Amino acid sequence: MAVYTQVSDEELSAFLRDYDLGKVMSLKGIAGGVENTNYALHTSTGQYILTLYEKRVAEEDLPFFVGLMDHLAMAGFPCPNPIRDKTGNALGKLCGRPAAMVSFLEGMEVIHPTPEQCRMAGETMAALHESAMGFDLTRPNALAPSGWPELISTAIDRADEVEPGLAQLIASEMEHVERNWPNDIPSGVIHADMFKDNVFFLDGKLSGVIDFYFACNDFLSYDLAIAVNAWCFNDDLSFSEKNCAALVAGYTSRRALNAVERAAFPTLCRGAALRFLLTRLNDWLNVPAGALVVPHDPKQFSARLQILSKMTTANAFGLV
Amino acid sequence: MAVYTQVSDEELSAFLRDYDLGKVMSLKGIAGGVENTNYALHTSTGQYILTLYEKRVAEEDLPFFVGLMDHLAMAGFPCPNPIRDKTGNALGKLCGRPAAMVSFLEGMEVIHPTPEQCRMAGETMAALHESAMGFDLTRPNALAPSGWPELISTAIDRADEVEPGLAQLIASEMEHVERNWPNDIPSGVIHADMFKDNVFFLDGKLSGVIDFYFACNDFLSYDLAIAVNAWCFNDDLSFSEKNCAALVAGYTSRRALNAVERAAFPTLCRGAALRFLLTRLNDWLNVPAGALVVPHDPKQFSARLQILSKMTTANAFGLV
Repeated sequence: MAVYTQVSDEELSAFLRDYDLGKVMSLKGIAGGVENTNYALHTSTGQYILTLYEKRVAEEDLPFFVGLMDHLAMAGFPCPNPIRDKTGNALGKLCGRPAAMVSFLEGMEVIHPTPEQCRMAGETMAALHESAMGFDLTRPNALAPSGWPELISTAIDRADEVEPGLAQLIASEMEHVERNWPNDIPSGVIHADMFKDNVFFLDGKLSGVIDFYFACNDFLSYDLAIAVNAWCFNDDLSFSEKNCAALVAGYTSRRALNAVERAAFPTLCRGAALRFLLTRLNDWLNVPAGALVVPHDPKQFSARLQILSKMTTANAFGLV
Repeated sequence: MAVYTQVSDEELSAFLRDYDLGKVMSLKGIAGGVENTNYALHTSTGQYILTLYEKRVAEEDLPFFVGLMDHLAMAGFPCPNPIRDKTGNALGKLCGRPAAMVSFLEGMEVIHPTPEQCRMAGETMAALHESAMGFDLTRPNALAPSGWPELISTAIDRADEVEPGLAQLIASEMEHVERNWPNDIPSGVIHADMFKDNVFFLDGKLSGVIDFYFACNDFLSYDLAIAVNAWCFNDDLSFSEKNCAALVAGYTSRRALNAVERAAFPTLCRGAALRFLLTRLNDWLNVPAGALVVPHDPKQFSARLQILSKMTTANAFGLV
């Protein structure tokens, strides 16, 4: 988390002059989110999230992210709805940074999802993939397998400091990915970060999905593979067959996986584990002085990778 | 800031079973506040602040802090109102920590206060002192002058690393305080930390005061001296006579200072600057590894101290 940029009452008032949101009632910096500064803004017209985009997000990607949320919300998908200013812009400037406001989504993340919650997450992911069709901007996945060798080169020498044997695991898994990654399966816009903290539940229902700042064009079933990593491991890092079967059933109830996707699914899951292992490992080894965030432990994903590398059939994931 | 303790949906639900606050709609960790973990909680009955008390706050002091807010709110003073559970308790346990919920106060802090806002802050401080009369718990000020020699001993050797000449300034100011601190002026419950970020404004009016976790029994005019440090310096660290005159006028419109208080006021202001200089200097020199907060710069207060040490008459503060 962090509030990287402090917004003063004066700067906020000046910014809001361009919007029809009524009078400011309160502004609270939100802890959580490592990429951007987020505020909960309460005005006389409602609750909003105000985001200032910090340097980890490329400014040229913002029209894609904000446009995607706009497109999804218009299609009825439960996600934050970008708020436009009086001249129709959804992207502004605040404190010298690109900034946007979105509607506030009620609901809470779950720490220990039930199979039913996993089923809803899977179904909602398929709805996202469906709703995003027709969105006309594209963004390549900067964290696709072609980007992993660079992440490996900056961390591999020190990987064993974090966990003995980690360098070897990474090298052999990268080799597996390079030999087995599919290249002709359905693609589209994916969320690419649908972890539990980005999905809210309210009254036993999934109320919405947030944080589209990794969204990109890639294989649709790779998004599901990321969700397997995010939703289907217990606290002790054992694999939850029940959660995985429910997640996959939820997804395939809206979009069936074809035979090539099913065959590639074990590799996609290993690749997803490797991708998060690599970014976390780099963050772990390069905590900047004065960092306001505690980096995530990469060992959470080496443990997943060890398990996933032994699950070699679609069947093992409940894909029938 | 920081969220030191992550509260899960399960732990929150279990905690809220003891309260009549309806259904949880959302929970967001708030950035800001170095002592405790704060969440903005939205339920079907309204907005609340949920605080988990971390180790920097002594558990035995909590009945004083929560009782004081309760007493002040009952007296009509604008501050958070502690929420009691079904059995009447305002203090509970959550995630192994003492926890309390208070009502949410609308409003925003100001960064550059106007004289009129300073006047309101002064008047509200006098109202606080008045409203707190009759509150029957007491808490000595752990950060009164008797506690400063210990803060000096842990930092003086490295003070000049932060700013050349700082050790000498601290020693001579401590000597001044020891010779000139008053001992027979009106006392009572003081806020002791009424900085700008603890005072909210809404619609041009002061809407409330928060953060009573330094409140204690001490000289009432020492609280005003702290506010001089907090409200009456410009960004370039020059002294704002206008703000100070307005702050003092606001305060004295409700409670006049007697002759002894007026004579002691310059010393009280220097002492207040020294107190914040010392705690900031200690925090600055002892940032723990993995700290989630950026320590405040102690030089902000050495600069104030240099200026205040030359303001030797009550008149210089607009006290007539």
